Amino acid sequence: MALRNFNLEKYLKDGANTYAQRANIEAMADHVSEKGFDNLVILGIGGTWAEWYPVVKVMEHYTKLPVHLENAAEIMVKTDKDFLTEKSCVVTASASGDTKEILQAVKMVKEMGIPVYGFTKNAETPLAKLLTEAVYNPCGDCEDSYLMYFMFALRLLCNRGEYEDYPRWADQMKNVHQNLVRIREEFEPRAKELAQKYAKEPYTMFVGSGVLWGETYLFSMCILEEMQWVRTKSVTSADFFHGPLELVEKDVPLFLVKGEDEYRELDERVERFAKTVTDKLEVFDTKAFDLEGIDDDFRVICSPMIITAILTERLAVHYELVTGHSLQFRRYYRQFDY
Amino acid sequence: MALRNFNLEKYLKDGANTYAQRANIEAMADHVSEKGFDNLVILGIGGTWAEWYPVVKVMEHYTKLPVHLENAAEIMVKTDKDFLTEKSCVVTASASGDTKEILQAVKMVKEMGIPVYGFTKNAETPLAKLLTEAVYNPCGDCEDSYLMYFMFALRLLCNRGEYEDYPRWADQMKNVHQNLVRIREEFEPRAKELAQKYAKEPYTMFVGSGVLWGETYLFSMCILEEMQWVRTKSVTSADFFHGPLELVEKDVPLFLVKGEDEYRELDERVERFAKTVTDKLEVFDTKAFDLEGIDDDFRVICSPMIITAILTERLAVHYELVTGHSLQFRRYYRQFDY
Repeated sequence: MALRNFNLEKYLKDGANTYAQRANIEAMADHVSEKGFDNLVILGIGGTWAEWYPVVKVMEHYTKLPVHLENAAEIMVKTDKDFLTEKSCVVTASASGDTKEILQAVKMVKEMGIPVYGFTKNAETPLAKLLTEAVYNPCGDCEDSYLMYFMFALRLLCNRGEYEDYPRWADQMKNVHQNLVRIREEFEPRAKELAQKYAKEPYTMFVGSGVLWGETYLFSMCILEEMQWVRTKSVTSADFFHGPLELVEKDVPLFLVKGEDEYRELDERVERFAKTVTDKLEVFDTKAFDLEGIDDDFRVICSPMIITAILTERLAVHYELVTGHSLQFRRYYRQFDY
Repeated sequence: MALRNFNLEKYLKDGANTYAQRANIEAMADHVSEKGFDNLVILGIGGTWAEWYPVVKVMEHYTKLPVHLENAAEIMVKTDKDFLTEKSCVVTASASGDTKEILQAVKMVKEMGIPVYGFTKNAETPLAKLLTEAVYNPCGDCEDSYLMYFMFALRLLCNRGEYEDYPRWADQMKNVHQNLVRIREEFEPRAKELAQKYAKEPYTMFVGSGVLWGETYLFSMCILEEMQWVRTKSVTSADFFHGPLELVEKDVPLFLVKGEDEYRELDERVERFAKTVTDKLEVFDTKAFDLEGIDDDFRVICSPMIITAILTERLAVHYELVTGHSLQFRRYYRQFDY
């Protein structure tokens, strides 16, 4: 099937290049493990923060290691950061390698004498020049970020004896891009239909939870708000019932991202309620998509990759077509100083 | 000055009754301290979660104690809660005493053999019957909740030798309600004007950070969304620059809550940007209000009380007048099962 604005050959090549970083990523994780560390401190902002979010949620299923996911702008002003010491493993990422807040935070951490590990597109970016050790990959799609971050994080846990399934998982991730192409193809007609129905709505509500909260937040904030100038409200499935529910009416679109982790029952509660109120409920359930050649116990880890493929990538491409507003165009972000 | 829908006599009487709980609150904190505990686990949801938020942020300025602010619905499904043990001090609150998620979470914790301390309006509520020890107070306004929660939390820290200023702070809190009356009077003309200007806007953005993030979130979610069915977007000052900024235009209202803690410079960055883009920027700066008889080093602790007085209480009352939609009326929340 033809996917709008999708270069299959490039996608699979980028995916293979990302997978090919496995040895470098594992080496970086192994260096950190050999050095030893007391906690993991991850610096992110915007989309990068949101991409690390599911990695942290999954890590928490397996480890006793304290993990701190920090907003790079906030850590610059935060006074309560005793957790950040020379025994911290500090990690960050910026594909462009020039995200202002990330650069500032990395400089601050380095000045404290703490090494920083990370991911950026190549050795020439300003971030690359600051990092103690880096993996270079010009990853285009969010699933490539997820793949790299999960490889690093789960290898760290494997080295600690907390995730012995790591090699089986990493081996099977060879198959993930092919799956995500098929999933895109399955979703394509719905993406087209959804965009025609909703892209010009004045307001859309996004609800999600657990491992998929990061991606729910990322799609609404970084895609619809930043790239499409579409008004959204994103809220967790638990918080939905303490305010936002009163805004739902027959014609208010509610997009529910439904995952496969332990938070699923909170999503189901939202679904039961919303079904009785709005005609514009759309459920995005990762369970509806097969993952061939990938064991069921890895589905939760792959669930943000499925949502990013169908919403953040596919649906965005169709929204752009209907709104006529290029996903590339920003009027403020990175356009001048503020 | 006449304040719309405000019973001064009742307000000051409620405030005095709340203050009069000081001995009971301190006794409860002292019992917990005598028993000993390894961490503090707070169960909240919706407005109550948001009210505990600044208490946690302030505690973190002084203590090494691990503090977990947990969403009561999420803790029911969460698998990663090793922090919850018989050595935890578990605290909760529900003025009505019948918030469904709070009751479920407290039952679960009690079944784990862990005592739960809390706040509710009287000894007859379902919550009161579950609690190990409780403080009873039918507090009407959020500042009364803040006062009680801060008294409990800061007394705990005082007992640990981490906040020796507690008695000086608690003594001065005798003056806080009188200050909050004067602050209401100062704000009243602006509340009236803001409501006339914005109550019927189709969308309003709320930005805040740090100690005031909870109140920013609470006003937008529990007041405007739940009680007024007004569409909002609430975002932290750091995240604002990673998506929401692109939605700001000349006629988009942006309400910025500006605090006095270390996050203030993030708020100022939002202010610099927003000033150049929208004609509808409204800044709510706690620094603009005097606190007579209260030392400057307690201003941060009192800052959520100021915002709750001017926005969550005063502005809400004027919004109601313009929208014609009673603050008491809900169509879904607590109206049926979901």
